[in-house]
Amino acid sequence: MKEKTLSRDGIWICGVNPVREALLSNNLVPGEMVHSRIDARIQDLLDLCTSRGIPVRMQKKEALSAFLGHAHHQGVALLVPDFPYVPLENILKSEASRREPLVVLDSVQDPQNLGALMRSACFLGAKGLVIPRDRSAKVTGSVMKVAAGAASYLPVIQVTNLARCLDGMKEAGLWVVGLAVEEALPIYDVDLTVPLGVVIGNEMKGLRPLVRKHCDILAAIPSHGPMESLNAAVAGAVVLAEIQRQRWFSRKEASPQRAPSRCGPE
Amino acid sequence: MKEKTLSRDGIWICGVNPVREALLSNNLVPGEMVHSRIDARIQDLLDLCTSRGIPVRMQKKEALSAFLGHAHHQGVALLVPDFPYVPLENILKSEASRREPLVVLDSVQDPQNLGALMRSACFLGAKGLVIPRDRSAKVTGSVMKVAAGAASYLPVIQVTNLARCLDGMKEAGLWVVGLAVEEALPIYDVDLTVPLGVVIGNEMKGLRPLVRKHCDILAAIPSHGPMESLNAAVAGAVVLAEIQRQRWFSRKEASPQRAPSRCGPE
Repeated sequence: MKEKTLSRDGIWICGVNPVREALLSNNLVPGEMVHSRIDARIQDLLDLCTSRGIPVRMQKKEALSAFLGHAHHQGVALLVPDFPYVPLENILKSEASRREPLVVLDSVQDPQNLGALMRSACFLGAKGLVIPRDRSAKVTGSVMKVAAGAASYLPVIQVTNLARCLDGMKEAGLWVVGLAVEEALPIYDVDLTVPLGVVIGNEMKGLRPLVRKHCDILAAIPSHGPMESLNAAVAGAVVLAEIQRQRWFSRKEASPQRAPSRCGPE
Repeated sequence: MKEKTLSRDGIWICGVNPVREALLSNNLVPGEMVHSRIDARIQDLLDLCTSRGIPVRMQKKEALSAFLGHAHHQGVALLVPDFPYVPLENILKSEASRREPLVVLDSVQDPQNLGALMRSACFLGAKGLVIPRDRSAKVTGSVMKVAAGAASYLPVIQVTNLARCLDGMKEAGLWVVGLAVEEALPIYDVDLTVPLGVVIGNEMKGLRPLVRKHCDILAAIPSHGPMESLNAAVAGAVVLAEIQRQRWFSRKEASPQRAPSRCGPE
């Protein structure tokens, strides 16, 4: 197969697990799969392609790496014509358990951070990730690789106007919490059990002033050392974990079961 | 200046802030500084070099980028002859507030993850980071760039035998908590206010069986979605944040001050 026959119109998802998750998901519409080897795990992918009617081609490993621009493909890549962004309305009108917490990225530029946030958001129970159409990293093949399969599960919403999007979330009953460093309450002092949208700012500049104004409250992860800030993706994960912790404890208080186990001296 | 006169024996710290923090720190012993431009912030660095007697050279931007292998240097790089790893004993014999929590990385391979963990550990109040001499990412210039200056503050300890290191930590009164996915208690059910060492496993394989055996308890970050695991660096940050939250609340309970503020409906 010649290299030029591989399409550049679309996104190539790479790696056995991400390709498998994309093939199993109803969220993505794969165009074709290319593989450079056959083993049990790739045979499994070939069977999935057969059952879904997705064309498959074999390719030399070196040619696949050259086309993709990297060798992190584990011998398999799947073409998705476009990343299927989801309209915000679809999330906001769904049932309560499926519409929040939402994560909103205000101009996160680094594809590595976008991918990491997708993975963390998916693991930590976020129901969607909102990114602005301009001044933001987009969902590309390398972002999806960092996301480690989360792109197949987590709805990603692309919006033109972030301030208007936050207003829409508020109208739908969500409280908008902006992660900030200054003039912010510790996240542990903020009630995160209510329906939430969490806004994470740019890696260097934090939240833009207009976005900051549209937040109901500003919250901060307390620092315990000389560093001024956490990486944006790490900060997002810490606040999402805290949201789930508060909700878990508020459910536990509603129906207490057992005393906590302790590793420390009694 | 010819490229070959730049030393390859050592670590080049890049970027204005990391270089500034390295120059201000007593932890690192800089050899020389190279810069490709002069502005107020770099003049500040030049003054620091003068006051510490560190040789300075000017270099064309393109040549500096070519030597470093990347352009993420913001026009300045500082040579540190070796990364100054700290002996474990130095940490364990220091006063109580300076010796824990310690973060222990069991074979974390990805330099990006090591740098991210250094940054998060420093921000979230860890007193040191332990890495094994073999089968682990080392502290290099690019790791320090990801660490965003944390290398200038956070002691990094390199050990030959991780199991023996964990025994030493236990003898010094630390409880060893391993982050795991299976057969583990939710981190929120584990008392993290006691003196702690937290062990984070390899990106793919988690904790090695021998290391797992040396943990006092295994703890997990609960998943709320279809993903099996968090990125190792993100998981480390989430557990460190939880350690600080538990300690903050236990101090608050000891001296209650005010009711939490709420963003949600009362």
